[in-house]
Amino acid sequence: MFELDPQLERDCFFAADLPLCRLLLLNDANYPWYILVPRVANVRELYELSRQEQQQYLHESSALACLMKTQFQADKMNIAALGNVVSQLHIHHIARFESDACWPKPVWGSIPAKHYVEAQAEKVIEATRASLTQLGLL
Amino acid sequence: MFELDPQLERDCFFAADLPLCRLLLLNDANYPWYILVPRVANVRELYELSRQEQQQYLHESSALACLMKTQFQADKMNIAALGNVVSQLHIHHIARFESDACWPKPVWGSIPAKHYVEAQAEKVIEATRASLTQLGLL
Repeated sequence: MFELDPQLERDCFFAADLPLCRLLLLNDANYPWYILVPRVANVRELYELSRQEQQQYLHESSALACLMKTQFQADKMNIAALGNVVSQLHIHHIARFESDACWPKPVWGSIPAKHYVEAQAEKVIEATRASLTQLGLL
Repeated sequence: MFELDPQLERDCFFAADLPLCRLLLLNDANYPWYILVPRVANVRELYELSRQEQQQYLHESSALACLMKTQFQADKMNIAALGNVVSQLHIHHIARFESDACWPKPVWGSIPAKHYVEAQAEKVIEATRASLTQLGLL
């Protein structure tokens, strides 16, 4: 049985359940930062998913990255599966801007998280959900 | 026409040409660190690849991550498409160890690169090529 890691639960807003992945918005308003978590128990690495799950992950990841680039008018998408601290497989999707606070460095360990006012986070999620619905993922 | 970015060319050893991607070994002996570069011109984001290329990328990435975990007895694989500095699409595949110099932090900007003695790099690449051949990717 899939259960979301407690640290991801604490640090993120729930955004949506796509066919394979749970979509979370990290509570850091420095950059639009979504996380995809395949709803499969006991998986730490992408290659541990079945071939079919991997293809579904890729489909959801590419759709998300493409819609984030448009929704936020990002200069670059950063996509990463690290998991050195939280071992449950989760993949970061971060919209980056040449004007953001730690460009061009990667975001980890650079600057402290800036929490959303909750209404802001809801607005971001609502726009993303509308795009996901148009794409047939919701 | 695909041409490898000059900075990647400078910083890496050539390891192999897989069906889609060029495989490079970054010249940093702190951790086994391969880079996959799809041999497709003018692509910055994974979702800009065709659907078929994306699936082939996924196949090569999963095979590489799985064989690295075994070859190096890694504790965790870190996989990331960033590209804020070098815009040509390239995806990092890094074998991480609980004993490595910057665990559990991500590797970027943590500690200076430690160059390989060339014979060491060749030995690493040779073992990887043997596994890729067994997997039918070479």
